[in-house]
Amino acid sequence: MAAPASSYDVLLVGGGLVGLATAWRAARRGLRVAVVDPAPASAAAASHAAAGMLAPISEVTYTEEPLLRLGLASLERWPAFAAELAADSGHDLDYRTDGTLEVAFGSDDLAALDELAGFMEKLGLPVERLTGRECRRLEPMLAPAVRGGLLAPGDAWVDPRRVTRALLAALERRGVTMVPARAAGLERSGEAVVGVRLAPAGEAPGGGTPSGTTGGGTPSGTPSGDASDGISPGGTTDGGSPGEAPSGRVLFAERVILAAGAWSGAARWLPPEVLPPVRPVKGQIMRLRSPEPVLRHCVRGMVHGSYVYLVPRGDGELVLGATQEELGFDTRVTAGGLWELLRDARELVPGVTELEVADVVAGLRPGTPDNLPLIGPTVLPGLSLATGHHRGGVLLTPITTALLMNEAGDDEGLAALCSPLRFQEQR
Amino acid sequence: MAAPASSYDVLLVGGGLVGLATAWRAARRGLRVAVVDPAPASAAAASHAAAGMLAPISEVTYTEEPLLRLGLASLERWPAFAAELAADSGHDLDYRTDGTLEVAFGSDDLAALDELAGFMEKLGLPVERLTGRECRRLEPMLAPAVRGGLLAPGDAWVDPRRVTRALLAALERRGVTMVPARAAGLERSGEAVVGVRLAPAGEAPGGGTPSGTTGGGTPSGTPSGDASDGISPGGTTDGGSPGEAPSGRVLFAERVILAAGAWSGAARWLPPEVLPPVRPVKGQIMRLRSPEPVLRHCVRGMVHGSYVYLVPRGDGELVLGATQEELGFDTRVTAGGLWELLRDARELVPGVTELEVADVVAGLRPGTPDNLPLIGPTVLPGLSLATGHHRGGVLLTPITTALLMNEAGDDEGLAALCSPLRFQEQR
Repeated sequence: MAAPASSYDVLLVGGGLVGLATAWRAARRGLRVAVVDPAPASAAAASHAAAGMLAPISEVTYTEEPLLRLGLASLERWPAFAAELAADSGHDLDYRTDGTLEVAFGSDDLAALDELAGFMEKLGLPVERLTGRECRRLEPMLAPAVRGGLLAPGDAWVDPRRVTRALLAALERRGVTMVPARAAGLERSGEAVVGVRLAPAGEAPGGGTPSGTTGGGTPSGTPSGDASDGISPGGTTDGGSPGEAPSGRVLFAERVILAAGAWSGAARWLPPEVLPPVRPVKGQIMRLRSPEPVLRHCVRGMVHGSYVYLVPRGDGELVLGATQEELGFDTRVTAGGLWELLRDARELVPGVTELEVADVVAGLRPGTPDNLPLIGPTVLPGLSLATGHHRGGVLLTPITTALLMNEAGDDEGLAALCSPLRFQEQR
Repeated sequence: MAAPASSYDVLLVGGGLVGLATAWRAARRGLRVAVVDPAPASAAAASHAAAGMLAPISEVTYTEEPLLRLGLASLERWPAFAAELAADSGHDLDYRTDGTLEVAFGSDDLAALDELAGFMEKLGLPVERLTGRECRRLEPMLAPAVRGGLLAPGDAWVDPRRVTRALLAALERRGVTMVPARAAGLERSGEAVVGVRLAPAGEAPGGGTPSGTTGGGTPSGTPSGDASDGISPGGTTDGGSPGEAPSGRVLFAERVILAAGAWSGAARWLPPEVLPPVRPVKGQIMRLRSPEPVLRHCVRGMVHGSYVYLVPRGDGELVLGATQEELGFDTRVTAGGLWELLRDARELVPGVTELEVADVVAGLRPGTPDNLPLIGPTVLPGLSLATGHHRGGVLLTPITTALLMNEAGDDEGLAALCSPLRFQEQR
């Protein structure tokens, strides 16, 4: 007997932050929605190791104005997104809007910060230049060596783990179907994608490639160890080759959206013309615990040539982030990663050394060649992508769901900016 | 109905490394032995956070010749101790005798090391001076900046967690009674101690003082959190005041030995004249994981004014240790502790940054005013101490049990050196 077919309006492959949020927005519109993921909102999701900064302004760089526009459009949507999600789930997201304080140490740093402030002002972004003394008045725990800073009062932040938990609750209330399985292939009708073939239950993730494999495009199948809380491999997609005979159940859907984060580029069951050019970019963060809040703002600074940030939570937790490492599907917490975080965070806020280490986590961001995400339809009718968010997954979640649901409007050409076709047409 | 009385030859209060080893040696001599501890060999024991260096030679300092003699006497006993314990338990202890390599960086360090070598040679200790090149020939992972070193080929090391597990197994085979309870008082007959009163089952540890209390002498009763593997409060003794009425069961014994480590000085149920002057000295260590062994020797060096060591295990694990902090009963793993370990270990062996962090642990060493342990009879007949081993608990375990069992001989006055009476007579 053949497995029974199911039918949905929207089927998400991948239950990380972007996949769950898209499912939620679709369900709110009354669509029939399913999410395929063996472990939705698990520790493998990049959001588990994300600090949750919603800081397009302070994170702007000269070469990335399109990304800034996208980030600002998403930041604008965050208040409503957070309020609706809180209402729909009954969860508190620890959503805060106290702004980011970017600080500078040496005179070179200060000059660079001044230049950045000028750039921002030219763009009409609301920033305030501060002296070192003014910085320390805002944040008394800052190092005496801080020479000056830039306050971006519009920047916000949120606890990504709370957001994914809230999304799971909201999805349950909205009756979204959670399918604890791996995708193993597309179901086609001519050119069109009409559904997803699931890997048979109990099948190991494709390849079983050991952790640390680089470039090969196979999701890691080997946990890196039980001692490192929160580190585990992902694998919402099966690495099997595209020609494999269908062996599992098929879920039919009007629209299939691949939202498999760093594993999106390793979904070898996709036809090559739509396989996204996404690579894993490892990040390690450290969560510290304090009896009382250490900072009121997100604090960010350049130290030893790399940015470090400190994100305070309402419960006194302080998140230090984040390394950026190109090591393939490697999610080991390393001595060097911790050392780098601690070295840099100490420079900004010396008092962090007194805080307790709550945990240390590594995650994999989905990087793309141009640092812009891949959101929207592909060359295959019925298949969309929602991946490649790199360091901006949390910030960009509202605009991502809006673009996918055609709610974004398109005054600014954001849909074109993020279109997966920009890579597919080159091939 | 009164609780039934039990009778033993030897009763240990405290099931850490020293208590368990003493129980084992006593049981091997055919004595009836019991160990009172709510959680023997737990993560609260200092040995859980110990690297296990058996290195009296490389750890010698000019002012501590008595401690050196004690350490050498114990090191000499380790081969037989390890062999007998392995045979009695069927466990492998990862006992290794490849020596310690002490390294120097700057010319100041090198001069200090030369002077130390001269001192050791004068004492007749077997050490070899090495050039930087010779050091790197022995240990290719050493930093290029290493200028010279000192090899103490007689030094050894062992995995303390394996030792305590082996002791538990050996005690079970030897029929030692494990009493999962807290001591709450001494049972007296005139001057003599004839047993121990236990706290009633289910009674909370005395005081419930929050973690971080300093000096007050109350064992911490508040776990520091579930995320930090291996960190938990001790508490083999009840902090209740000495005048309390007996409320629990009594265990009778010919001889009671207090071996409660850092908590020994907080055993307020002891008469004041025998309460040992022991304070907790916090140490944090980090365990790294490597697919293959990184070092062949224990490596030790002075960096930024503090010693750091790297101890390799047979399975590729590498232990970095250890901080020394005077913070009372505080067992939080802190950002500053990790940073210090990583900063210093990187200087000695830069390649540690590539290794995975397996876990991070804090423990409490039992410190004494003169850095020598308290081993032997007290002014109260029937009561002995076996505590105050500070950084040397693993090394000094064999000589401690020998002194307690009167097996040490006393050519060198070691019993007098360690006698608890040196403090009790001053009062």
